Amino acid sequence: MKVVTAIDSMKGSMSSIEANQIITDLFTERGHEVKAIAIADGGEGTVSAVVKNGNGKKVTVPVQALNGKIVNGDFGWFDSKKLAVIESATASGIQYLDGTEKTHPTNTSSYGTGELVLAAVDHGAQTIVIGLGGTGTVDGGLGLLSALGIEFFDHENQLLPANGGSLGEIAHYSAHRLDPRLADITFLIASDVESPLLGPSGAVYMFGQQKGLTKDELSNYERNMKHYQKVVSGTDASFVGDGAAGGLGFAIRVFLKGTIRSGFEFISEQTNLETVIEQADLVITGEGQMDDQSLQGKVPVGIGRIAQKYNVPVIAFVGSFTGDPKRFSEEGVSVIIPIIDHITTLAEAMNEAKSNLHKVASRTLTLLMLMKN
Amino acid sequence: MKVVTAIDSMKGSMSSIEANQIITDLFTERGHEVKAIAIADGGEGTVSAVVKNGNGKKVTVPVQALNGKIVNGDFGWFDSKKLAVIESATASGIQYLDGTEKTHPTNTSSYGTGELVLAAVDHGAQTIVIGLGGTGTVDGGLGLLSALGIEFFDHENQLLPANGGSLGEIAHYSAHRLDPRLADITFLIASDVESPLLGPSGAVYMFGQQKGLTKDELSNYERNMKHYQKVVSGTDASFVGDGAAGGLGFAIRVFLKGTIRSGFEFISEQTNLETVIEQADLVITGEGQMDDQSLQGKVPVGIGRIAQKYNVPVIAFVGSFTGDPKRFSEEGVSVIIPIIDHITTLAEAMNEAKSNLHKVASRTLTLLMLMKN
Repeated sequence: MKVVTAIDSMKGSMSSIEANQIITDLFTERGHEVKAIAIADGGEGTVSAVVKNGNGKKVTVPVQALNGKIVNGDFGWFDSKKLAVIESATASGIQYLDGTEKTHPTNTSSYGTGELVLAAVDHGAQTIVIGLGGTGTVDGGLGLLSALGIEFFDHENQLLPANGGSLGEIAHYSAHRLDPRLADITFLIASDVESPLLGPSGAVYMFGQQKGLTKDELSNYERNMKHYQKVVSGTDASFVGDGAAGGLGFAIRVFLKGTIRSGFEFISEQTNLETVIEQADLVITGEGQMDDQSLQGKVPVGIGRIAQKYNVPVIAFVGSFTGDPKRFSEEGVSVIIPIIDHITTLAEAMNEAKSNLHKVASRTLTLLMLMKN
Repeated sequence: MKVVTAIDSMKGSMSSIEANQIITDLFTERGHEVKAIAIADGGEGTVSAVVKNGNGKKVTVPVQALNGKIVNGDFGWFDSKKLAVIESATASGIQYLDGTEKTHPTNTSSYGTGELVLAAVDHGAQTIVIGLGGTGTVDGGLGLLSALGIEFFDHENQLLPANGGSLGEIAHYSAHRLDPRLADITFLIASDVESPLLGPSGAVYMFGQQKGLTKDELSNYERNMKHYQKVVSGTDASFVGDGAAGGLGFAIRVFLKGTIRSGFEFISEQTNLETVIEQADLVITGEGQMDDQSLQGKVPVGIGRIAQKYNVPVIAFVGSFTGDPKRFSEEGVSVIIPIIDHITTLAEAMNEAKSNLHKVASRTLTLLMLMKN
């Protein structure tokens, strides 16, 4: 049969690509035709996923990490479309935080993500997708904007450093040196974060502490972010997604006219997912934790809704499941199959996830074929 | 489709009848035709299982439990065949042991099982099946034989009490008062225990401690059992199954010419299992722990071997599985599905076994039908 596998990553256990590979190998071995769609949410692994899906290539360039060190960053490149896909986690990812003063939000910067944008422009990009998951910065995108040529000055007209510490110091800015090529480029933001820039669910209060702000610092930092917002956008209007990636969402929307779409929407378009599903006999999807939140349109339910239109059955392999299977089958997810199959702890289950998936998928395939003889 | 369900009990979680009922309800609800075969191994639940399978009835009679108390014992009765099925655990079961001197093996007796045999004879039985699992006695069947009329005397020609303490005291016995009706009755022993009466895997060394013997008492008790064997059988030849139920196997073989068959063989014959399976589209079986030992012919593999002859697929639901699924599929067990599906402890898993079985069976049925549309 013709099978599509599009399993989301199971955080801490396996990437989407790895999970799909297990299914692909198993089903191919038993004579089925498999098409794998790597899933990405704009965070770590997004570039690998889109390159894998679309016959792209990776382009590697030196960029400044959020801690100031020079690292190899990469973006995905699709020559026929002149399309670049950047994940901000490459240069500005949370993996660079080390708990020291040096990587405190006042000292970190999304500058490197701006460098990646410039590298993509140099490469001839007409469309640039910027994935916003997994960043460690809370600089409102000030670093990225600095890399692109925007200059921020204090009350004494001194150029400010491109980091979070400057947010409250800005008196005015100049777009005079902003790279003129940017105006002709279409920017898309791939993000599943719907936070505004400010407020209790914003970049500071919601995500600041996991990036190194102490609880005591939050209100002051929020005030600085608010000041920055007002100065650079001229308004305190808030948009959904502005708070993604420590405010990178805001900066890209305001200065690059970036429009947001979810990681899943982007992958769907890139892979013609609807057509691919329409032609399949069976779709396999999955995610780490499936629960009522998943009904809000996380990957498996997104896929279920498409498959339902074409009457294609969907199996979801999940790390854990709570909820009523009926509500999911109404959304096109025909069967939800947890991959755990023995007495185990969470740590063991994470460790064994790949072999558990392999075993349960093998049983499942046998069952699917059992009554066909 | 036509489905046969024949799941063995999952000890501590659910009986065979309960497990089958879950499958029956679920599959019937979705429009399938289900025949349930209750599995028994000669131990607790055997009478209920055979009565359920064969339209028998239960006959209740007062009998002496192993601790001397009078309890309600029952046997299964099949009038058309003049067949009685007894489980020795009813009167002589391990559930009566309380750790006191009163239920120490020297003071306990299989007398009540003998009373059940007599009650079945009174009822007109021409064939009596005695199930030997789950007993708490180690009296070599001396109690049962006493109830049937055999008298054991010591060196001073005094009648000995009918308990384990008499084993080493017997000088001679008399079958003079043995109920003469017994000679015309066919006795079958339903047992999965292959132990001899004596030795390291015998009734004393292998099972004595779980019935109340201390480690220090074993060698003396073994000597007494050996003495008993010699006096009553005139030989020290050992037979497979003699050690079942604290030596009841030995007594029934020697005095009642009972022949052993496994619980599964008995159920198979009773239910015409082979014919039933031949006519099915799918067989569901299962057991608590499936592992390499199960390949020696426990219930699911026994069923797999039959189903394989007729090319009927077999699904086994199991509490736990270790081993190579391929070795089981070679024996006709097409798919082995553990019922655990989330992070859990053993105690939780035992508690939730019924709901886990229901959930996994529901998913499985959906999968079986998924590609049929």
